[in-house]
Amino acid sequence: MKNVAILGSTGAIGRNALDVIIRNKTAFRAVALAAGSNSRLLEEQVRAFRPEIVSLERKEDAQAFREKIKRISVRVTYGPEGAEEIGGYGNSDIVVSAITGISGLRPTLAAVRAGKKVALANKESMVVAGSVLRKEARISGAQIIPVDSEHSGVFQCLAKEDRRNIKTVTLTASGGPFFKTPLHRLKTKTLEEALAHPRWKMGKKVTVDSATLMNKGLELIEAKWLFDLDPGQLRILIHPQSIVHALVEMRDGSVLAQLSPTDMKIPIQYALTYPERREAMVPSLDLGQVRSLEFYPVDERRYPLIRLAYQALEEGESVPVALNAANEAAVAAFLAGKIHFSDIHKVIRRAMDGHRKNKIRGLEDIFAVDRQMRERTIQTLQKRL
Amino acid sequence: MKNVAILGSTGAIGRNALDVIIRNKTAFRAVALAAGSNSRLLEEQVRAFRPEIVSLERKEDAQAFREKIKRISVRVTYGPEGAEEIGGYGNSDIVVSAITGISGLRPTLAAVRAGKKVALANKESMVVAGSVLRKEARISGAQIIPVDSEHSGVFQCLAKEDRRNIKTVTLTASGGPFFKTPLHRLKTKTLEEALAHPRWKMGKKVTVDSATLMNKGLELIEAKWLFDLDPGQLRILIHPQSIVHALVEMRDGSVLAQLSPTDMKIPIQYALTYPERREAMVPSLDLGQVRSLEFYPVDERRYPLIRLAYQALEEGESVPVALNAANEAAVAAFLAGKIHFSDIHKVIRRAMDGHRKNKIRGLEDIFAVDRQMRERTIQTLQKRL
Repeated sequence: MKNVAILGSTGAIGRNALDVIIRNKTAFRAVALAAGSNSRLLEEQVRAFRPEIVSLERKEDAQAFREKIKRISVRVTYGPEGAEEIGGYGNSDIVVSAITGISGLRPTLAAVRAGKKVALANKESMVVAGSVLRKEARISGAQIIPVDSEHSGVFQCLAKEDRRNIKTVTLTASGGPFFKTPLHRLKTKTLEEALAHPRWKMGKKVTVDSATLMNKGLELIEAKWLFDLDPGQLRILIHPQSIVHALVEMRDGSVLAQLSPTDMKIPIQYALTYPERREAMVPSLDLGQVRSLEFYPVDERRYPLIRLAYQALEEGESVPVALNAANEAAVAAFLAGKIHFSDIHKVIRRAMDGHRKNKIRGLEDIFAVDRQMRERTIQTLQKRL
Repeated sequence: MKNVAILGSTGAIGRNALDVIIRNKTAFRAVALAAGSNSRLLEEQVRAFRPEIVSLERKEDAQAFREKIKRISVRVTYGPEGAEEIGGYGNSDIVVSAITGISGLRPTLAAVRAGKKVALANKESMVVAGSVLRKEARISGAQIIPVDSEHSGVFQCLAKEDRRNIKTVTLTASGGPFFKTPLHRLKTKTLEEALAHPRWKMGKKVTVDSATLMNKGLELIEAKWLFDLDPGQLRILIHPQSIVHALVEMRDGSVLAQLSPTDMKIPIQYALTYPERREAMVPSLDLGQVRSLEFYPVDERRYPLIRLAYQALEEGESVPVALNAANEAAVAAFLAGKIHFSDIHKVIRRAMDGHRKNKIRGLEDIFAVDRQMRERTIQTLQKRL
């Protein structure tokens, strides 16, 4: 029996992780849950899973929450410290890191420092702090298993293959809801349309990132750190069916690929059970039924942010931190209805134009660049409005 | 430096293997070559590779051959014993087994008994004598590495995966030249049309087997023995692009697939270099260029032989031996212009109707069933003519 802590238990990944735990009751127990503001769902989760500790983002939510569940024995904490406590919680074996954005970094780092097995869905922490997380994992012995379907795919293809045999690694992207939209009509795409992802049910921020392809850009940077690859080895292919998640090309021309039905439960379960596998929770993939798997090169006119992502991948240091911050701020503005879809990349580009690369020596540098770029992006936004 | 013996050096696989050896001169040397009747090509090979021993099928060819190359120091043998000697040749490390049909069995067995690393392209020996070859390999420590692109794909996907995790294994089939031919027009297909394979350049017998899908049926039986699978775990999918060679479904719903450009040099090189990989001899696979990978279930009206293959896979013992013999005899008759394309399956079915399953206790049983079924198939043919 493994004890599981979930950072972001009320989000899309967190809910799926709890589904996996229900289905594998004899193997896993949820002992610690960190949520954001969805007290109602956290209450259901507490009643169903009886964890030892939970946290909410705000103090007042936590206080109200204690009242509501006072007959249940569970510690209720709150704020960034609460999430961090869940990340490093002593009684867990596995930590599912699924808080979106840079807010996930400190709790993830707490899990890594505590030497946990970390099922990592929070790609932003690898993007901004890949070198820190890798170093800390080496020291503590923490194992980082990817939860993103693409990285889970790469992880499985690499298996025990000698790294010197790896030539390229390709992550696939569905292309998002606007893959076939005529370019001149991207401007008028609404929030609702951007959130209607054709394949994956995910949180709002990552769904918008899929529409701009920034999600894949961040994933390239994540892959570099997860698998110790050179930027030049990383590729993206648009694959609208989202069935092939990753392709690893060997030096001899052979390519290994990982496929699965489009359901996050598969990589989540794999991350929890690794190195074992357990019975599927979804029907088998039937390619005879799917019929056709399509692949397209990335059109940079449709996805202008991808060039910035490749630059950040190449340059490293503060550049991925800045790009991630500008992206989080711009997407938040889009989600708040303040800018148009096609403004997202313009705002990010303008903010990035003002960024000068500098060395990252530790967390403080990361948070400083992050704060500064968020402010700059918001200023850029305000000038446009 | 590894010394390589090639059984079937003048065939399609043998020539490709020699190409791989030329390209990897520092790693491999061809020391023994067994050919059929193509003395002219064997002579070129002897001049280019300077092997220590060669064999030809017929005594008179061997005698004439000795005359032609008398200034070169090379032993020339002949007949089934000659091929067997090449298979077990003391100075080789690796044996490429690429004689077509059941004639490949004794030389392959000689290689296995001698504890060689056997790069196996002769699928018929696994089909008729899988249990014998596996037992002998266990005793001698011989390693059998598949050369067929599909089995090489399965081999690579399995890597070090725990066998209990394997749910199904799917081999793909191009569907051959008649995949889109209207069913009522199959009857009139000529030998020339049957030999025009859309994707692979192969020997004549295997090309006809591709058109009937018997090739894939034999490969299922081969896969059962190579990977120790249950018949119920094995599947076929038609995949006209021949880029995805095999798919391995894990119990958790994840699928690993192996892809490559359609070139036999890749699996041949892999079999020679395994567990290492060396630089590709062909350009990288570019899926963005290929665009679409299609998959279709097998239509048994188009490929009626596949049902017989599944029966042989299930039943085992003498049934695969009988099916292989009937197929070799029927395909030979088609290649000789004696029957129509759509007669192949009828002749085989009629011959198989008369076969009663019996136990296989060793090679003698195999050859007895083989002889008997060839005779029966030829009788069936004669009745029809």
